[in-house]
Amino acid sequence: MSQPTKPSAYAQSGVDIDAQEKGLARVKKLAKSTFTPGVLSEIGSFGGLFRPDLAGMTEPVLVASADGVGTKLVVAKMMGDYSGVGRDLVNHCVNDILVQGAEPLFFLDYVGAGVLDPKKMVELVEGVADGCRENGCALLGGETAEMPGFYQPGDYELVGFIVGLVDRPKLLDGSKVAVGDVLVGLPSSGLHTNGYSLARRILFEQAGLGIGDRAPWLKKKRTVGPTVGEALLDTHLSYLKAVRPLLGHAALHGMAHITGGGITDNLPRILPADTHAFLRVGSWPIPELFLYLEEHGDVGGEEMLRVFNMGIGLILSVAPAGLADILGLLRSVGQRSFVIGTVQEGGAGVIYDLDHRASAPAVPSE
Amino acid sequence: MSQPTKPSAYAQSGVDIDAQEKGLARVKKLAKSTFTPGVLSEIGSFGGLFRPDLAGMTEPVLVASADGVGTKLVVAKMMGDYSGVGRDLVNHCVNDILVQGAEPLFFLDYVGAGVLDPKKMVELVEGVADGCRENGCALLGGETAEMPGFYQPGDYELVGFIVGLVDRPKLLDGSKVAVGDVLVGLPSSGLHTNGYSLARRILFEQAGLGIGDRAPWLKKKRTVGPTVGEALLDTHLSYLKAVRPLLGHAALHGMAHITGGGITDNLPRILPADTHAFLRVGSWPIPELFLYLEEHGDVGGEEMLRVFNMGIGLILSVAPAGLADILGLLRSVGQRSFVIGTVQEGGAGVIYDLDHRASAPAVPSE
Repeated sequence: MSQPTKPSAYAQSGVDIDAQEKGLARVKKLAKSTFTPGVLSEIGSFGGLFRPDLAGMTEPVLVASADGVGTKLVVAKMMGDYSGVGRDLVNHCVNDILVQGAEPLFFLDYVGAGVLDPKKMVELVEGVADGCRENGCALLGGETAEMPGFYQPGDYELVGFIVGLVDRPKLLDGSKVAVGDVLVGLPSSGLHTNGYSLARRILFEQAGLGIGDRAPWLKKKRTVGPTVGEALLDTHLSYLKAVRPLLGHAALHGMAHITGGGITDNLPRILPADTHAFLRVGSWPIPELFLYLEEHGDVGGEEMLRVFNMGIGLILSVAPAGLADILGLLRSVGQRSFVIGTVQEGGAGVIYDLDHRASAPAVPSE
Repeated sequence: MSQPTKPSAYAQSGVDIDAQEKGLARVKKLAKSTFTPGVLSEIGSFGGLFRPDLAGMTEPVLVASADGVGTKLVVAKMMGDYSGVGRDLVNHCVNDILVQGAEPLFFLDYVGAGVLDPKKMVELVEGVADGCRENGCALLGGETAEMPGFYQPGDYELVGFIVGLVDRPKLLDGSKVAVGDVLVGLPSSGLHTNGYSLARRILFEQAGLGIGDRAPWLKKKRTVGPTVGEALLDTHLSYLKAVRPLLGHAALHGMAHITGGGITDNLPRILPADTHAFLRVGSWPIPELFLYLEEHGDVGGEEMLRVFNMGIGLILSVAPAGLADILGLLRSVGQRSFVIGTVQEGGAGVIYDLDHRASAPAVPSE
């Protein structure tokens, strides 16, 4: 049967199925580039098919997480650069299941827009596919939705969903974390994917910066250096490669991914009842970006620690007896780390030693 | 340590972490009400933990899908009623993996808004939890994102992810579909979750209807009947209960979920190369809503079949020898069905017999 030659009524209503399908063909290719041996399906079947390798497992447990990248998307739009947020999203999701001891199996994405510009869609999914390949995670499927009038022109929503696998004896659910554990922090690269609403307000409204200005918080005044926008788009790091050698290690009692809510809200998620974390602020180097935000935003130190990661992207809770071994394993794969505190008896949540901040320089554990 | 008494800087920037957490507590309870024996985690851990029951399986295959509900959300907003879209979303996702023979294990949701009204968030998640319970699917986790300035006030995005399980010998991937198969259609309840952009344009702009008007397409003029808005919010049906007894049946060769792209784009996804589907339009009752949309929208018959489901939500491809058995099984669980066509040799895609539409009344197969 012939196709209608005039623009279809559906296209007139803002949805162009044909343009969508053109972009989808490229997206299929990108997804295919991430396929691992477990993938049984082609992109385009109703559901993605994945056969997990369960060999040697005593009790396979699936670990799943859903996430977005928040208003980092607004910065990406301001910069006209959506190439990085896909990797941010994958890495974020990988970390969320890694902290429970799981390695990723597959990922699905959702891209929403008023009218999908196939170029932008491909740019977004390229980032997702890059992130998936880097983490050995198959991009098994996804959904693109055109919602005219719902999204503002040029805006793209990006949501991700990950499934990983862990054998139950190696599962980290916080139950092993104990009083006396040493807390080891792994550095973040910047804001990762949290605190962008406040950061944008401080930088662009209160400090009056422009997105294309050289980042003024960098101590070495360089004529060529990252702009404010570039610094804000720094990639959310994946800790999979650094932490994989530690999975199943008896001294690794638990891990917390520092995302929305900062250390203050995330670290307690793995603490046993009637314990608290005692952290020496200043035992790790706080990147200048955060100090600049604190200064220009008139934001209190405690609030900073509840909104931003303050330079720590992942925290390990480690048995003291195995600390040297764990630090050695991190060093051996080139991962910087800092001993930042301990788990202590009584109370709840995180107690910060803020005095420490001024008095002692950060000493890396490596 | 004391909490700040003034509104926090983060709240001033549009994100209120405390209000979010209040709603999240209710959401946790809702999620818990859906938990099945496989769930190992509480909501609030970084990833949701699920231990699948693999007993008796020869080769477990995970089936995953991501989806949204499109601009049905705009109708929900117009009606001030977000209670149903969660169920729509779950049912949509359940069907997407069901057509590959999988039963659902767990679901995760993503709710995005400019500023989350905790009441609305709970309303949305209540619908998701209802849908999960009805499908025996655990709501294992999710993400709520406040993105001030990104979403328009009062708008809510809702995205869902599902993971199901099928033993590979029972997997339906289209490879069993064969020439001579009989196509059996199961009725939809309405638009389900597709075609809302065009439907809104036709109903509200071209036909000049109001959201609160009595639906004029209903033949029996009732003084009390559904409004236009109510009819548009009719629930996307889940076919799990009807189809579960058929899973693994040798005569069930394949299934297609009729979503965006209509029968025209979805049925070919399970057709072998060099075959086409021949469908007699009119062999099933086309709900008056679709006829009204066609008439008032000046939309061609073929485009109607590519945008809307036209009254068919799921199509089964059935071996002729087992047809009576399959129809009997559907009847035994109270599921209406219609023999709507066959798989034929040569060509590709769907060929519609549109003449049939006028000449023969629909005869249900039951």
